[in-house]
Amino acid sequence: MTEALLFDVFGTVVDWRASLIRQLERFGRDNGLRADWVGLADDWRAQYEPAMNAVRAGQRPWTTLEVLHRESLDNLLPGHGLGALSETQRQQIVLGWHFLDPWPDSVAGLTRLRRTRIVGTLSNGGVRLLTDMARYAGLPWDVILSSDLFRQYKPDPSVYQGAATLLDTAPENIMLVAAHNYDLAAARSHGFRTAFLARPTEYGPRQSKDFKAESDWDLVVADLEELAARLGE
Amino acid sequence: MTEALLFDVFGTVVDWRASLIRQLERFGRDNGLRADWVGLADDWRAQYEPAMNAVRAGQRPWTTLEVLHRESLDNLLPGHGLGALSETQRQQIVLGWHFLDPWPDSVAGLTRLRRTRIVGTLSNGGVRLLTDMARYAGLPWDVILSSDLFRQYKPDPSVYQGAATLLDTAPENIMLVAAHNYDLAAARSHGFRTAFLARPTEYGPRQSKDFKAESDWDLVVADLEELAARLGE
Repeated sequence: MTEALLFDVFGTVVDWRASLIRQLERFGRDNGLRADWVGLADDWRAQYEPAMNAVRAGQRPWTTLEVLHRESLDNLLPGHGLGALSETQRQQIVLGWHFLDPWPDSVAGLTRLRRTRIVGTLSNGGVRLLTDMARYAGLPWDVILSSDLFRQYKPDPSVYQGAATLLDTAPENIMLVAAHNYDLAAARSHGFRTAFLARPTEYGPRQSKDFKAESDWDLVVADLEELAARLGE
Repeated sequence: MTEALLFDVFGTVVDWRASLIRQLERFGRDNGLRADWVGLADDWRAQYEPAMNAVRAGQRPWTTLEVLHRESLDNLLPGHGLGALSETQRQQIVLGWHFLDPWPDSVAGLTRLRRTRIVGTLSNGGVRLLTDMARYAGLPWDVILSSDLFRQYKPDPSVYQGAATLLDTAPENIMLVAAHNYDLAAARSHGFRTAFLARPTEYGPRQSKDFKAESDWDLVVADLEELAARLGE
């Protein structure tokens, strides 16, 4: 019996790329600045995995995604002709990650899914970021589980094991839902059930993987509405 | 600016005593058992603080409230003529703490309060207990913060400081709402704002304290609806 459905968030539940691009373009208009905003968004996200890898490998102590986002932005701005942005402007841009728009099926799917099961996050974002995002996007989470509770990033074992401990149930009673095969592989290795849905436009033209299920995940669905239907909701 | 309102839960948001008594009486009827169910509920809760004190003092390692509840129940059952209860029956009784009824003002008050501020728990309960309770009682939490995230019980400093860290804001931007003066005193000592509301029937005839505010808390209100009104919601 699946008691809880935990969701990867960036890419699986929210369309971070289109949201960030819209925010950056608006920022440019509001501040009379011209830049390659699409390129900045893509370059920024490309720093995401390398930045977390230093923490995953133990090469640096626990550092929140909020801090990593800011460091990456600071590194990228000069190359995009934006090195003169003020402290306040940089803070404003980083805060954009808290206010991402859901995919069209997300809110309806989650609302159906939570009728009989706990729905929660299992994200490399932080508690505050995920809380702000849920309020903004109307994501009806029962519980927010995130990297900063465990002071490690997925796919570190402590994140999956820690989630099962907090939910006080066996891993096989939890299903991870994600658009990323690596995340599901880690979850399965710790005994979770798994559901994959492709989000083939997540990374825009740069997308190079996760177009399809790469293993025999317990469920493979088109979106969260289909997941609800498959689970009988 | 108060960005987040964090709530003590047992006694402040839910009426644990009336709920437990109802559950135990129903358990008695369903199982054809007679006992002093009111006395058992009160004796059980009386074990709550002593059981947590051993953890607070570092005399035993981190132990969840779920485990403490079970230990206390096992200790009390023989004295109540219920020493023959089965493992399944004991589990059923302990699970009752996950399904407590709110005070009449709780859901309406929280719903108003969350319009413009984050509302969350800051409870000695655990994540699973609080998540189950929210689903059962319709408590619209944005975020669940609890003892098992910090592996300590209030009023240990790590709980308040840890909550501020996870909410990524200064303590003065957080208000603790509680029916217990000791909790507010600890919160204030860590820089939180404070709101008190009396729940004079929480402990029934055994109630001996917390009939009124014992310090100049930032707000003193009759219930959560009045809190919402005072905060302009």
